[in-house]
Amino acid sequence: MLMKYQQILEEIHKEVVPLLGDGKVADYIPELAKVDPGKFGIYLLFLNEEAYYIGDAHEKFSIQSISKVFMLALTVAHLGEKVYERVNVEPSGDPFNSLVQLEYECGIPRNPFINSGALVITDLMISHLNNPKEELLSFIRELVGQEDICYNETIAASEKACGFKNAAMVNLMKSFGNIKNDVEEVLDLYFDFCSIEMNCNELARAFRVFANHGKGVIDAKRYITESQFKRMTAIMQTCGFYDEAGEFAFRVGLPGKSGVGGGIAAILPGEYSIVVWSPGLNPKGNSLAGMKALELFTTKTGTSIF
Amino acid sequence: MLMKYQQILEEIHKEVVPLLGDGKVADYIPELAKVDPGKFGIYLLFLNEEAYYIGDAHEKFSIQSISKVFMLALTVAHLGEKVYERVNVEPSGDPFNSLVQLEYECGIPRNPFINSGALVITDLMISHLNNPKEELLSFIRELVGQEDICYNETIAASEKACGFKNAAMVNLMKSFGNIKNDVEEVLDLYFDFCSIEMNCNELARAFRVFANHGKGVIDAKRYITESQFKRMTAIMQTCGFYDEAGEFAFRVGLPGKSGVGGGIAAILPGEYSIVVWSPGLNPKGNSLAGMKALELFTTKTGTSIF
Amino acid sequence: MLMKYQQILEEIHKEVVPLLGDGKVADYIPELAKVDPGKFGIYLLFLNEEAYYIGDAHEKFSIQSISKVFMLALTVAHLGEKVYERVNVEPSGDPFNSLVQLEYECGIPRNPFINSGALVITDLMISHLNNPKEELLSFIRELVGQEDICYNETIAASEKACGFKNAAMVNLMKSFGNIKNDVEEVLDLYFDFCSIEMNCNELARAFRVFANHGKGVIDAKRYITESQFKRMTAIMQTCGFYDEAGEFAFRVGLPGKSGVGGGIAAILPGEYSIVVWSPGLNPKGNSLAGMKALELFTTKTGTSIF
Amino acid sequence: MLMKYQQILEEIHKEVVPLLGDGKVADYIPELAKVDPGKFGIYLLFLNEEAYYIGDAHEKFSIQSISKVFMLALTVAHLGEKVYERVNVEPSGDPFNSLVQLEYECGIPRNPFINSGALVITDLMISHLNNPKEELLSFIRELVGQEDICYNETIAASEKACGFKNAAMVNLMKSFGNIKNDVEEVLDLYFDFCSIEMNCNELARAFRVFANHGKGVIDAKRYITESQFKRMTAIMQTCGFYDEAGEFAFRVGLPGKSGVGGGIAAILPGEYSIVVWSPGLNPKGNSLAGMKALELFTTKTGTSIF
Repeated sequence: MLMKYQQILEEIHKEVVPLLGDGKVADYIPELAKVDPGKFGIYLLFLNEEAYYIGDAHEKFSIQSISKVFMLALTVAHLGEKVYERVNVEPSGDPFNSLVQLEYECGIPRNPFINSGALVITDLMISHLNNPKEELLSFIRELVGQEDICYNETIAASEKACGFKNAAMVNLMKSFGNIKNDVEEVLDLYFDFCSIEMNCNELARAFRVFANHGKGVIDAKRYITESQFKRMTAIMQTCGFYDEAGEFAFRVGLPGKSGVGGGIAAILPGEYSIVVWSPGLNPKGNSLAGMKALELFTTKTGTSIF
Repeated sequence: MLMKYQQILEEIHKEVVPLLGDGKVADYIPELAKVDPGKFGIYLLFLNEEAYYIGDAHEKFSIQSISKVFMLALTVAHLGEKVYERVNVEPSGDPFNSLVQLEYECGIPRNPFINSGALVITDLMISHLNNPKEELLSFIRELVGQEDICYNETIAASEKACGFKNAAMVNLMKSFGNIKNDVEEVLDLYFDFCSIEMNCNELARAFRVFANHGKGVIDAKRYITESQFKRMTAIMQTCGFYDEAGEFAFRVGLPGKSGVGGGIAAILPGEYSIVVWSPGLNPKGNSLAGMKALELFTTKTGTSIF
Repeated sequence: MLMKYQQILEEIHKEVVPLLGDGKVADYIPELAKVDPGKFGIYLLFLNEEAYYIGDAHEKFSIQSISKVFMLALTVAHLGEKVYERVNVEPSGDPFNSLVQLEYECGIPRNPFINSGALVITDLMISHLNNPKEELLSFIRELVGQEDICYNETIAASEKACGFKNAAMVNLMKSFGNIKNDVEEVLDLYFDFCSIEMNCNELARAFRVFANHGKGVIDAKRYITESQFKRMTAIMQTCGFYDEAGEFAFRVGLPGKSGVGGGIAAILPGEYSIVVWSPGLNPKGNSLAGMKALELFTTKTGTSIF
Repeated sequence: MLMKYQQILEEIHKEVVPLLGDGKVADYIPELAKVDPGKFGIYLLFLNEEAYYIGDAHEKFSIQSISKVFMLALTVAHLGEKVYERVNVEPSGDPFNSLVQLEYECGIPRNPFINSGALVITDLMISHLNNPKEELLSFIRELVGQEDICYNETIAASEKACGFKNAAMVNLMKSFGNIKNDVEEVLDLYFDFCSIEMNCNELARAFRVFANHGKGVIDAKRYITESQFKRMTAIMQTCGFYDEAGEFAFRVGLPGKSGVGGGIAAILPGEYSIVVWSPGLNPKGNSLAGMKALELFTTKTGTSIF
């Protein structure tokens, strides 16, 4: 069995290598543009501790929007369902940072995984946590079971310096009353959150908690309730991949979340977590080789939620 | 085991009875407005032939948009993936019959389960089938294994007489070149398709083929390929419930399709199909008691794709 | 004085000849695409009967949207201000045939000079006139003082065969209840109205009645009231040139109306009417040489409403 | 003659007094909400020095968006037509501070009299003037011929504290590259500009320069060129009244600009400037009694550009 999964990862590796030059590394953030487009890694982690990996699975990268999953989990753990009074749970159907939807729907973002929604989550964290910046890191470190997970201040500063569309969104939501704190504070913290760096192994350990319905595999601690897990998984399924949720559901069939750093973290509830990283993006903003690798994985293993 | 499911349906029945007055029967189609809002039925059908039902599970109702699933299945069975050159596969994020998206995306509908998308499917059926009106009925009859499934001409005429928004969409798409046939012909056929009448039992038998990955349970005939099944299921999951796909994924967690006649058909791939009917709708256009019943069902049985 | 104006027209003619190849003849209507792009004419007609012209000022062309002015005038003459309960009077700020505005503003067009607004006017004419098709022609013939003004059935048929965006709009407005008659009847009549053919001389005579505040210069008949004239002139000023009302107000400074046939009719209230025709259009859909000619005319004569 | 105009103003005063309670004082800026809704004044100033006034014509009020006219005039005086590469000249057809247009038109505002457009003008002033804050005041003081015209720091601070929609717009435009300076600097200066206080008499003197085609009546200085005057007047005509340009053109027929402080300044080029002030606004954001007063004035005097 062990051989089988390792062999599958090796086959996948061979098949995606030719694709590594096809994607386009995110260049709107100068710091991200410096990443080597030839990087590729997978980490597969089962609830029963079996683990398989290949490639650059232990090299840190900017998790970017994948942090939105941790932000949501920590916030619902504190506040429960009332989070969803401030942000909706439906797919957006628009490019991931559109203002139009926000204006027509009176400042209520469509879901917590688009930028506007994550900005509202950030605002909630400022209102209800003592030290959200520290607490998010602590939360992730606890999920992973490892201390050296940090923000990258250079990346955060780089994003702040060009994050005008996010600033537009947070100000628009403030004009509708759906941001309670100072807009600069919200933006600063949001960009910090996006700048977290982890490797495939660390992300796989963190997401395994979600694959285990919100309960730690090793510490057996319940991080989020069964119902909160279910809600979060549904949001990952329908909203986790920018404007490609349908395509991802078809090709991969796992709930998950991608980031413009080229990472994708996904789960098969009750079974495993899997994380791929490849910095080249497709036109919709998802890792090109990463999506292909996950598609090959679920096809070869015959596992998917469907 | 048999007792268990029957008992669950009975419990659900009791719990939803108080909700039967809360929804609002669709009244934009005069014929639909006449339906008794107190109706409620469930039919649950396993691949292994076990079957359970309760209430008005053998009374026919207007399946309305549920027919979009049959339309899509028949069309991809004939044309394969090239269907998706004319209609996208992503959630819409807008009210189910919005023109704005269509105008900004140059006449390409977001997915085949919104009205505009189903109109394109209808157009494809006219272009590529000999007698699409007859063939869709034959296809459904074969899936069900029963002959007496028919269009309701009164309902179709009733919809035609007030279907101006659909007419607007088909004309707009025609202006973009994404409708090839005569607009009146497309509209007429589309309204016929919406007017099909089936009961919970019949729908459950038809959807069981989809639960069986596109292969007939009794006749063992392959209606759609494994890949076509996967695509269709992904679309049901992300786009099957108007602007409530995320809510449905959370509360119920099954791929499916609803109609304004108050029906909802859903599947757990590899396990069962389940159909509920209750004509009162919630503000998003899905059966209010139907959604509750399915939520209770997946909770009580612990089954969901997640 | 007579010399002066004739000389000005001659100078203008010389200056615009090099521009005649720069515009693009409307080609979305096959019949219009056949027009010679080298055509150019001006007719200038004063209230005091002085008249000057140059070029192809006596050759008929398809007046297209210029007919919207006659449609509005005839309808307000019959129904008064209540016309403006069904159509607004503000500039649209969008491409001239957008559906987005119509959907967000619940089927109420922004003004009577965009296609959607003129379709509502057509609907009002069907509801309130005995024979609108005949009566509009009679109205124009009376304004001009000449009988041989007709519809061009070939042009009307040509537009009907490709008028899907107009069909989309009329159906959308019907869905909002802002079209009372049969959509096919409205569309047919609308396309007839667009197909009227007149020459610069005839249009100048008709528009002179508007320059004379709605009162015939020769027959002294009051066609529209002073207040109706004021309203119509304001609409021509702010909405008469698709998405170029501001540019036209600056460069020309006269209220008027253009058509995709390449005609532009304008007035200086109390002074004169002026009509230019040149089939090549600029990217906004207004006659390229026609706008230049009118700009030169108001500059050289020092006349403009400002 | 002198009696006539004074008498007209007195008649108007009587007629509008009953309307003074009907409007709604702008309350989104706390400082503005404190203004007495019973205030009303008119100042009428002819090129030939004749002057008439009534009511509170010498009481200062917050000119708000009327300052956009001065901002545009000063900027085109410095930079000429190239201003219009950064801001368009067409009516917007949307509520006065909409983001949708801005997003679809890639950060180019529709015209310099909506907030987004004035923010671009502010940005241009920062880039090209040495001390724009001082220079705008100097410019206005010179137009008026009077020194005591100032910013109201309390009003500016009040607007800054709730100006999130403007912040959203400036950030959005920055994301498209159409704001060159620091967004905070642009916003601060913009809110300063909005906070200028003047009375009807002072505004009438300043606008008389525009009524005189951009040339000072007393100092004979040319402030803007004839062509710049023509452009600015066209923009006032088509874009000066939020989403009521068409209504204003009909009812009043003069180019002008209104502000949410309840002021309206208008001109009849070559004849006079006229300023009214009444703080109660209609639902479109224009002074309710002010519009009525101007309508009565142009009707009673038979003057309008049409």
